[in-house]
This record gives sequence, structure tokens and C-alpha cells, in this order.
Amino acid sequence: MALLMGMAHAVAQTPPAPPAGADPAVLEDVVIGSRVLADFGVLDGFGHVSARHPTNPNHFLMARSLAPALVTANDIMEFDLDGNPVDARGRTVFLERFIHGEIYRARPDVMSVVHTHSPGVIPFGVTKVPLRAMFHNPAFLGAGVPVWDIRKDFGDTNMLVSDSAIGKSLAGALGDKPVILMRGHGDVTVGPSVKMAVFRAYYTDVNAKLQAQAIALGGEVNYLTPAEAEKADKINFVVLDRIWNLWRMRILPQLGK
Amino acid sequence: MALLMGMAHAVAQTPPAPPAGADPAVLEDVVIGSRVLADFGVLDGFGHVSARHPTNPNHFLMARSLAPALVTANDIMEFDLDGNPVDARGRTVFLERFIHGEIYRARPDVMSVVHTHSPGVIPFGVTKVPLRAMFHNPAFLGAGVPVWDIRKDFGDTNMLVSDSAIGKSLAGALGDKPVILMRGHGDVTVGPSVKMAVFRAYYTDVNAKLQAQAIALGGEVNYLTPAEAEKADKINFVVLDRIWNLWRMRILPQLGK
Amino acid sequence: MALLMGMAHAVAQTPPAPPAGADPAVLEDVVIGSRVLADFGVLDGFGHVSARHPTNPNHFLMARSLAPALVTANDIMEFDLDGNPVDARGRTVFLERFIHGEIYRARPDVMSVVHTHSPGVIPFGVTKVPLRAMFHNPAFLGAGVPVWDIRKDFGDTNMLVSDSAIGKSLAGALGDKPVILMRGHGDVTVGPSVKMAVFRAYYTDVNAKLQAQAIALGGEVNYLTPAEAEKADKINFVVLDRIWNLWRMRILPQLGK
Amino acid sequence: MALLMGMAHAVAQTPPAPPAGADPAVLEDVVIGSRVLADFGVLDGFGHVSARHPTNPNHFLMARSLAPALVTANDIMEFDLDGNPVDARGRTVFLERFIHGEIYRARPDVMSVVHTHSPGVIPFGVTKVPLRAMFHNPAFLGAGVPVWDIRKDFGDTNMLVSDSAIGKSLAGALGDKPVILMRGHGDVTVGPSVKMAVFRAYYTDVNAKLQAQAIALGGEVNYLTPAEAEKADKINFVVLDRIWNLWRMRILPQLGK
Repeated sequence: MALLMGMAHAVAQTPPAPPAGADPAVLEDVVIGSRVLADFGVLDGFGHVSARHPTNPNHFLMARSLAPALVTANDIMEFDLDGNPVDARGRTVFLERFIHGEIYRARPDVMSVVHTHSPGVIPFGVTKVPLRAMFHNPAFLGAGVPVWDIRKDFGDTNMLVSDSAIGKSLAGALGDKPVILMRGHGDVTVGPSVKMAVFRAYYTDVNAKLQAQAIALGGEVNYLTPAEAEKADKINFVVLDRIWNLWRMRILPQLGK
Repeated sequence: MALLMGMAHAVAQTPPAPPAGADPAVLEDVVIGSRVLADFGVLDGFGHVSARHPTNPNHFLMARSLAPALVTANDIMEFDLDGNPVDARGRTVFLERFIHGEIYRARPDVMSVVHTHSPGVIPFGVTKVPLRAMFHNPAFLGAGVPVWDIRKDFGDTNMLVSDSAIGKSLAGALGDKPVILMRGHGDVTVGPSVKMAVFRAYYTDVNAKLQAQAIALGGEVNYLTPAEAEKADKINFVVLDRIWNLWRMRILPQLGK
Repeated sequence: MALLMGMAHAVAQTPPAPPAGADPAVLEDVVIGSRVLADFGVLDGFGHVSARHPTNPNHFLMARSLAPALVTANDIMEFDLDGNPVDARGRTVFLERFIHGEIYRARPDVMSVVHTHSPGVIPFGVTKVPLRAMFHNPAFLGAGVPVWDIRKDFGDTNMLVSDSAIGKSLAGALGDKPVILMRGHGDVTVGPSVKMAVFRAYYTDVNAKLQAQAIALGGEVNYLTPAEAEKADKINFVVLDRIWNLWRMRILPQLGK
Repeated sequence: MALLMGMAHAVAQTPPAPPAGADPAVLEDVVIGSRVLADFGVLDGFGHVSARHPTNPNHFLMARSLAPALVTANDIMEFDLDGNPVDARGRTVFLERFIHGEIYRARPDVMSVVHTHSPGVIPFGVTKVPLRAMFHNPAFLGAGVPVWDIRKDFGDTNMLVSDSAIGKSLAGALGDKPVILMRGHGDVTVGPSVKMAVFRAYYTDVNAKLQAQAIALGGEVNYLTPAEAEKADKINFVVLDRIWNLWRMRILPQLGK
């Protein structure tokens, strides 16, 4: 990833300025979150991190169609909840922006959405083994992790959430949960801030890999109880800035800061 | 891999110029593809990426015998479909260039061939478990992945595709598919461009590792249906440049660009 | 991790000086240990390394609440065994400092405590498979590795060792052993020096991953006998500086040294 | 590993010059081999690479007691086959130099010995599953891989090859093979050159990991036949310089070259 350090400048020239009036701190969180998930392999060349617009709850902020490791603040565009760009200026947009728009519409508490093809979760999306909380950091999984299969409502598709109807089906299956797996595709995590949605994307991947290892050891696995999970997840809000500060300091040099 | 960054200059002095008339963009694709697959561990010190000659369909372009992480445009040579170098100038050539020549001969649609010993696929080449599409990016596997065993036609060999007869056997087993596994050896991926053949080599390795993990979880695995795979693979052509641009920006600093 | 190299200066400005009278060599060991375990992924953004105060056995030294990869000598604070900071100066402290205080109280032989959420050990904390010594470097595991379940004494909690009573329960379960696993959480390693506690945290993680792989191969696993483990662990004290010197030279550039 | 790049100078000041009369090319091979195996995680802070003295077959060359990632030519010492240093000048020596001396004594064809605790092989040393050749690069495993258990001849020990008698037992179990596993410890690879012994250490680790994955897929594994292995291993001698050149170019910057 050291090789990515010099890219920020070259990319920054391509798109115009970020959306007017968008809080620079939120834009930075989207940039840091996109790049740190790429650094950890939770995202590869695909996937995306978005934020609800801080002052217009019917809009959201997401990069133009670009690999997450390359995103800068200047690449971030503004969309309405139908997935229409407010001011496209010729930039290409993500095919799956409907994941974000429909979840923001269905879940007023959600301020950020992350979509990944994380290697940990893909096996859990195609088997019957439920993803469950292995330890306190991924305690948010204790609420239950639904698996959404696009084939159930839409038959044989290209697997993408490529319109509002499919986005609504996904948002409906997510319900009030923080994480959903997508069969043959990846996952979506949501949260009350970009930091927390990114934290959940990271620890969902970590948990999945550890759960697979525990299952391979054989015998019963002693997961967090629902009550433990609920209590432990409250602590994640207390300690979130500690790990976010680490991630931010790891990414800033890529941005020439 | 940061340690490889300074090598481009030293290596570039050894061989003479690249083949006359070869499109520099295609040469760059071969260089980027060779190096990014090495960065990801899909290739180690062995394996190779080739392109059909853009203006002479009976010739192909491939590096002299050199580790993929070290390939520059100046290392690329021109070969006829029998594997004869057009202008060797004393350079050593890959023992397995017949993989490339015979596939270009048998498959007019193929513009690029990649041969790897990728760690994901080797276990699938020596067991009876078919490689199948786990998610949308490796959807091209949904067409079916044959396994070629050199022993079937040639008995006990040194395992290499070291002449045209062996290359023809491999090309025959590949048929019209995009990927073939080679028992006790590795795999070959092909495509209508260098970018797509490299994309397929990368996602074949990713898919194999994820499929092994899904199998280890136990129970039935819910693979992409053939119809889903066919539709999803069409999207790969739409998004290919997004990930290729990431890979290119990752490699360019190694080339002093 | 190369991206962390430039961070030392920025962080060093935040907190004031390290505890007066604390041996700089011990402070450096805490810094090196924290950072090298983060480099190896034994620690992520969480976990901590402490040392008993060299001249006051009723106090210990531990960083303020900070990701281990960012710790510098100036971040290290002094605590009494009840977990009270001697001179907080407004700095936030780790919620789980009671792990350290109660183990120092119960174990006069222990000069350092490391707490991790290491990926190797979490699966062993939630299954019935005992962690056992696979080879000579983790021979200290041959003494037996207890698993402590916070639920046994405290019911449904947030999983953290967040007060002295929970710390005492953990220290009691540790007994005279060098390592204890914490169900749904991680582990604690202790030693007669920071170097040895860090060595044990590293090799406990290595051993757990290798033991999982040996179990997956099938059949009986031929672990070190108790007598072999006891003899082999004596050698670890002889060779400890060889690996510590490597780790120290790996981390010094991060500190601008 | 980028962090190791600046270390060469500091370490080089400690020891005096390398053994008089030793071929600088062989010394460089020992340095490159030690460091590249550390880069790949085949060696960690422990393990060693040696060469038979090019002009005195009753002596061998090995570093002073030092982590492999830090070895420079100036750290290399000369030993007789009993493990006595020719000119110690106060330098500490490896406890397990008897592995090397006794194998050089028993095997006149062997010009280099590598001892590792490689993560791939440790599980195979403590189970009944024989290590077998998965593909052509590790074809040298097709000759059969003995497992030596120190407990058989010496009862409960500290697991180390700490004297000539233990070294002779190990050399006897190796016989005429290129690789031997050591129960609860690691492995030894040998070869007619440093390059080939290092190549074998690397591909033994690669093969072990792939074999474990193939076994986990279930069903019979289709290994190389003995005849295939014998033929394929001949090719390794032809292509060895291709991968060695890559490894050498990867390491030279660490040495300031």
C-alpha cells in the first residue's frame, strides 16, 4: 500500500470540488474509511462508503465510480435517495448506489452505509451457518445477521443492486439490524456515523474469519449471549475514536498530509 | 514489494527494445499485469502473461525468461504460434511458451493468456472438487472449469507444457472456456484483452480460497446459477477499468512513472 | 506499517513527560513491545503492554488510552495496583487497567503483563480444545493454559475487566501460569520482563494458528510432553535477546531513531 | 520489511571481517538466503542458513548468533564439522550448529543446509500425515520426507540439536533425502548450493500449506508420482536462477546495494 501514497495528487485533479456545504470532517471520514478498508483487504477494487448529507437528510455523499483506495474528498458527489446525482458534471457513478439510497430512506437512524465484498463474509453468505458474535468488538453481530438472497425476489439477475426496487428489497431484509449479508455478493454495514459503519465492516470481516476457525476446531462454539452482546456493543461507542485515530494516522500520509 | 521499486532501471538495460510495431499500450498492459499478479502472490517467481500481437494475429508478445515482478516493456519478445522467437538476440525464453502459442492458435477470440501457479487453485487441481462461482466478480467460472491432467495423454512427465503437442492437448481441454486448471501445476486464464485475462487470474485465485472456506463451514454451498453467472460476468466488462486503474496506479511507481 | 513511521513526532507532543524515575530502558521495552505486536497483528487498535514499576513494586507503567501502534515513552503513565493513575493530568486511561493491577498484586514474580485480542487465540477461548505446545518456542504453554469465562462469576457483562473484582477473578484463574485465555475476548500473557511477556504473546498467537492447522490435518497431534516443555522453555530465556534485537531494530525507525 | 532496510550499516560495525578466503559470492548467497526466507516468514527471529566452505570441505560458513533478517557478510563465521568456531573473537554462536556440521560430515554432496521453524511444516511434523509433492516446484518432496523425533533416541530434551550426538541422529534420519521434518521443532533442507537449499526451504513451506488445504477439501489427493517428481525436480535446476535473481534484487536494497 506504500505504493499508493503518491497517487492522491494525480487523482485529485480529475474531478471538480466536493459538494458545496458538505462538512469537510464527514468528507474526510468517507475518504479515511474507504482507504483503510482497502488497506485491510475488506475492500478490493470494488465496494463503497457513503454518508448521509449532514444538513439534508434526503441526500447522501458517495464517491464517483472509483476504487476505494483512490478516493479523495474531491471525488465525492451528492445524490438524492433515488440515486440521482445532484450535479454529475460528466462523472460516472456507482451502479449500486441504490443500496445506499434505499437504506437511508428506510432507516432514519442510519448516517453511513458501507458495502463490501469482504473475504470473511462471502462464505457465510452462501452457507447455512449464521454469523454470530465471537468476541466483544463485533458484539453488534449479536443482534442477528440476516442473509439476503437477490434470487428470492428477482430470480436470476446479474447479482447487483442496480435499481431502487432491488435496493428496497435489501433495505427491507436489513430491518433494524446493523449488518446484512448478500448471497453470492458481500455485505452491507450501517451505523450512526461513518466511523461506526466502517468499524462494523472491519470487525464483521474479522469475526467471520475467526468464527470459521472456531468451527473448524470442532465442537460447540461459545458465542456471546444476546445480553452480553448488547452490553459489549455499548463499549464500542466509547472506544471507537481510539482505533479511528490509528486508522486516520495510517491513511493521512497517502493524502500528503 | 516496495523493495522492487528501484529495479526497473537496472533490468531495462539488459534486453534490447521491444518488438517493432507492437502497441505500447498493450506492452504496458503485459507489464502491469505481470507485476500486479506478483504483488498479489498470484504469481511468484514463475508464471507469465502474454498478448496476441495487435496487428499480426499469428504472433504473440511475451517477456523473455524473467520473474514476472521484474518485467519491463523492453523485456517483451515476439513469438510465432509454434513458439519460435522472431528475433531472439540471445535472450532466453520461457520453456512453457507453447501454452500461449497453442491457445492463440485454437482460440481466435483470445487476445491474452495468463499462466499461474496460484496458491488458491493448486488444491482444486489435485482433488475432485469442481471450482465454482462463489460471487459475481468470478462469475466467469460459472461456465465450468475443466481440469487438465498431463498424465492422461503423456504419462509420467516433468509436468511442463514443453512442446506444441502438450500445448495442443491443453488447448483442447480448455475448449471455449475462460479458465482451466492443470493438475499438479497451476492454471491458465484467457480473455479478449490483457486486462480481462489478468482480472480472471486474480479472481480465480480469490474464488478458490473463498470456496475452500465455504466448504470447510460444512453443508451445501449456494453457488451462482449458470444464468446468474452469465449475467453477472457481463458486468465485469463494465467495471474492469475501475480495478485496472487501481492496479496500474499501484505499479507505475515501480516503473519510475 | 511503513505509514506509521512519521507518526511518532505528532503524537509525542500531546502528553507530557513519562513518569519520573522510571527506567528509560523499561519504557522503551513497553514502546517496542506495543508496536511490534501491532506490526504482527497480535494487537490491532486495542490491547496493552505494561511493566511493573522497576523501583516501586506497588505501581505499574502503562500507556494512556491509545492504540498500541502509536505508543511513545511520553504516553506512559504510572498507576497504583487499584488502577488509579498517580498523576493523570487529564489523560484518559484504559478501561481494563484492572487486568494489570490485580495480576501484579497476585503475582510478585510478574514484571510485565500483555493483554491482546490476538486472532489465533480467540477461537481457542470459545471452544473446548485446550491450547497446547506445538514446538519449542511456545513451550511455556506446556504448563497448561486455563480459559477464564467472565460469565461464570459475573453473569452477563460487557465482557471487559472493568473493575478490581473482575481483575481479581481473572488473576485467580491465571494462578501461577504464564498465559490465560479469556472467553469471547482474548488473552493475557505475563513474564519476568517486558521482553518475555511480549515473546509469550507473540508465540501464543503463532502456536494457536499452527495447532488449528495440525488439528485440521486429522488424527492425533504429538504435542511437547510436560518435561520437554519445561526444558525447552529454559532455552527461550537464553535466545530471547536475539529475537528482541530484531524486533527493536524493526521498530526504531518508527520512533525516528 | 521495509523497516529493515536501514539496519545493514549499524549491524555491520559489530563483527569483524568474514572468514579469510571464503568466496564472496557464497557469502552473499548466505546473506540473501537468510534475509529472503525471513521476508517470506519461512524464518522468523530464529533459524539459519549455512554453506560448506568452498575450498575446505571440512569447514562450513554460518552467521554468528543473529536473527536471519539482520545477517550481513561480516557476520559470517567459519566452523569445523564438530561445530567449533575457527576464530570466534568473542562472538556468540548458534546452539544448533551441530545440525549443519553433522549433515556436512554425513553427506559429501551437500553444499548448503537450511534450518527453519516454518509455519507450513510444523503441523506436518506432529501428525501422521506425510508431506508429499503437490506440484512441480516442490517436486523434490517426491523422494519422501522423513520425520525425525528427538524423543526416540534422547527421551525428554529441550528439543534442540545441541550436540554432535543429536546432530548425528538427525543426519542419519535424513539419509539421502533433501528435506527432513523435526517433530515439535521445524525442518532442515539441504542442497548442492545455497540457492537450491533455500529454494527447497521456501517450496517445502509453500507445499505444506497447499497440501493442508487440499486435504481440507476432502477426498483423495492426486500427488505427483515418483517418476513425475524425479523428472520435474530436474527442471528446478534449470529455472533456479530466475527466482533467485528476483529474490536477490528484492534483498539488495536492504544491504545498501
